[in-house]
Amino acid sequence: MNVILHRRYRFSASHRLHQPGWSAAENRRVYGKCANEHGHGHNYVLEVAVTGPVDPSTGMITNLADLDAFIERHVLVEFDHVYLNEQVPAFRSLVPTAENICRVVYDRLRAYPHARLASVGLEETGANSFEYAGEFREKP
Amino acid sequence: MNVILHRRYRFSASHRLHQPGWSAAENRRVYGKCANEHGHGHNYVLEVAVTGPVDPSTGMITNLADLDAFIERHVLVEFDHVYLNEQVPAFRSLVPTAENICRVVYDRLRAYPHARLASVGLEETGANSFEYAGEFREKP
Amino acid sequence: MNVILHRRYRFSASHRLHQPGWSAAENRRVYGKCANEHGHGHNYVLEVAVTGPVDPSTGMITNLADLDAFIERHVLVEFDHVYLNEQVPAFRSLVPTAENICRVVYDRLRAYPHARLASVGLEETGANSFEYAGEFREKP
Amino acid sequence: MNVILHRRYRFSASHRLHQPGWSAAENRRVYGKCANEHGHGHNYVLEVAVTGPVDPSTGMITNLADLDAFIERHVLVEFDHVYLNEQVPAFRSLVPTAENICRVVYDRLRAYPHARLASVGLEETGANSFEYAGEFREKP
Amino acid sequence: MNVILHRRYRFSASHRLHQPGWSAAENRRVYGKCANEHGHGHNYVLEVAVTGPVDPSTGMITNLADLDAFIERHVLVEFDHVYLNEQVPAFRSLVPTAENICRVVYDRLRAYPHARLASVGLEETGANSFEYAGEFREKP
Amino acid sequence: MNVILHRRYRFSASHRLHQPGWSAAENRRVYGKCANEHGHGHNYVLEVAVTGPVDPSTGMITNLADLDAFIERHVLVEFDHVYLNEQVPAFRSLVPTAENICRVVYDRLRAYPHARLASVGLEETGANSFEYAGEFREKP
Repeated sequence: MNVILHRRYRFSASHRLHQPGWSAAENRRVYGKCANEHGHGHNYVLEVAVTGPVDPSTGMITNLADLDAFIERHVLVEFDHVYLNEQVPAFRSLVPTAENICRVVYDRLRAYPHARLASVGLEETGANSFEYAGEFREKP
Repeated sequence: MNVILHRRYRFSASHRLHQPGWSAAENRRVYGKCANEHGHGHNYVLEVAVTGPVDPSTGMITNLADLDAFIERHVLVEFDHVYLNEQVPAFRSLVPTAENICRVVYDRLRAYPHARLASVGLEETGANSFEYAGEFREKP
Repeated sequence: MNVILHRRYRFSASHRLHQPGWSAAENRRVYGKCANEHGHGHNYVLEVAVTGPVDPSTGMITNLADLDAFIERHVLVEFDHVYLNEQVPAFRSLVPTAENICRVVYDRLRAYPHARLASVGLEETGANSFEYAGEFREKP
Repeated sequence: MNVILHRRYRFSASHRLHQPGWSAAENRRVYGKCANEHGHGHNYVLEVAVTGPVDPSTGMITNLADLDAFIERHVLVEFDHVYLNEQVPAFRSLVPTAENICRVVYDRLRAYPHARLASVGLEETGANSFEYAGEFREKP
Repeated sequence: MNVILHRRYRFSASHRLHQPGWSAAENRRVYGKCANEHGHGHNYVLEVAVTGPVDPSTGMITNLADLDAFIERHVLVEFDHVYLNEQVPAFRSLVPTAENICRVVYDRLRAYPHARLASVGLEETGANSFEYAGEFREKP
Repeated sequence: MNVILHRRYRFSASHRLHQPGWSAAENRRVYGKCANEHGHGHNYVLEVAVTGPVDPSTGMITNLADLDAFIERHVLVEFDHVYLNEQVPAFRSLVPTAENICRVVYDRLRAYPHARLASVGLEETGANSFEYAGEFREKP
């Protein structure tokens, strides 16, 4: 089961890094300019990796049309061209850092029925990207 | 005077395409999902082109350190990690389309003292970019 | 009228460089491995540049949705996932070199009603691209 | 043995996704426009990863000149500028999906004598890529 | 502990591949044009991957500002815009191949206090990159 | 005569920005870290643009094989994997800034017999590139 398909999707969204329990100064110290109160935005690149055996009749792990439709319905329709903090319910109580976006997307995609979700990657800018492969553990 | 230097800068910002004089339906018809009321964002790539004779002693059109400092001071400090509609005064009365961002940036940069501004380019996503070389004329 | 919008489209197609009036050896001498009789293919990147005044009410040269629909209908629907030599009529009598593809695409796009077509660019591989801005003249 | 060298090669080829045992409608349903009977093409990017200890005298895992010559002889000479379905014997009986191309290339490269083959990646377009690391298992 | 942050840094440096114990002919045979006695250079892309649990209060593995400052101080200040063979002491006795640069950088970064170093990648050109994840073993 | 072919070539070289008539402090003030006495390096991307009518029999402006051979012989063989200041005679008396490299390359390529040289571009890093189209004029 070691063929991996990496498929890239794009969405443009805005967000603000802000922990409501902290002072403005503390938010600015931790998040820098990402704490700006009106938010800012990115062209996010979402890289979904799925894995599984190759079907000998089709020669494919999964049909890209099936995968695209699943990602569209479960992620893009809600994440593209929005302000994440306000318009994606999960981020009302969770800071929309790239790490947390990965986790939220991963949880939405693990039910994909045609192949096993291997990892979710998120490129926020050309200089940094994040990768999450499940079993997320927070510091106690 | 036909040596051109193209220098790329990046800023991450959010914006909303919205004409206040129009109905919500009209805004949605013209701007599509870019009219979303909470805005959305991009990793903008700003490409500044300057031109001029090569100084025979330095071998350069202009010093990149001078150009970088000028762009930082006149554009990036105000455009990076902000919500353009709210935080850049010019966009209080001007829809921050890529075309208008080019114009506003161009007007700020034409005073660069060490070379002639040739054009301002703005890449909004990997699929579309805009280029403005001055003498902007609006439809009468 | 000097704001230019560059918009990129992609299509995957196959072609064969072959002049039917020449011998196999002559075709091989001129076109090298591109003359291979079963064809080969590329991920083409089509870069359409249109120009015009910025509409003061919309802040745009043209609506991207209009441009996308026009390119889809006039080019992509016929050029994507095909064998150009067999499935695009213009290339029955014209070798589908990148230069000729640019010309054929340009002629299809010049009637775009919402802005003036400035140029058509075609990237065939990461190493070479072509740009055509009209008034094509052949050697007499 | 955990230094990995990733080396990228490119080839331009055409292919057609088509299962001869199926009806035209069934092929179209599974493969969409990739089933087009005249084929279509891509600029494939092949990413070969090899691993091994670093030789203390040369400071290298393997000599790139050796690797390049091996890939050229065992893959590129036969895969570049061809119609895969017709001109690479393995694809006479195997649909040339990206998954199957990875497998065929992997089997040709595992005999590389100077380092251990870690994986074979294949980028078909900028949006999707495949990665195969051996021990390919088909559904029973 | 399976969230991974990949962060890219760039430095421009020159180097020469040359084993002082060998003849000029032997160096040329092993290193090809990289043995050129005056050196040559690259725009290196350093990709640092760190991993760790996501802090539930910040939503981050580590603060990018902390990571950037650490890489700047421990690597970039000494590696950027230099001739590696002469100006980085480790390369006085070690050939500055990409493999060895990875090892030297990895050893400098493993003490990063805010997350666990997962791997160090180095892209030397667009065609080849190297990745090192520790426990480097040389051939006996 | 308005079809333009852009073709990209790559060379890896080192250079040092240093005006011998100036003090070390003056060189450092003007060139910053590029004045480092041991030099540094880049992966240069050379973009050659040639233009001309399309030959109706071949469908091409010029044969890429001819262009590649010309660039190889007149530029790459001497510029790739060298220290420009020492190994390209023109840079013994001319600071190898990107501007001056463009000029030297342009002068070597204008004799290309099969199409007219339109411009020479040089990308030094992903952030800056230079373009020269002839008629170079220095400040008096």
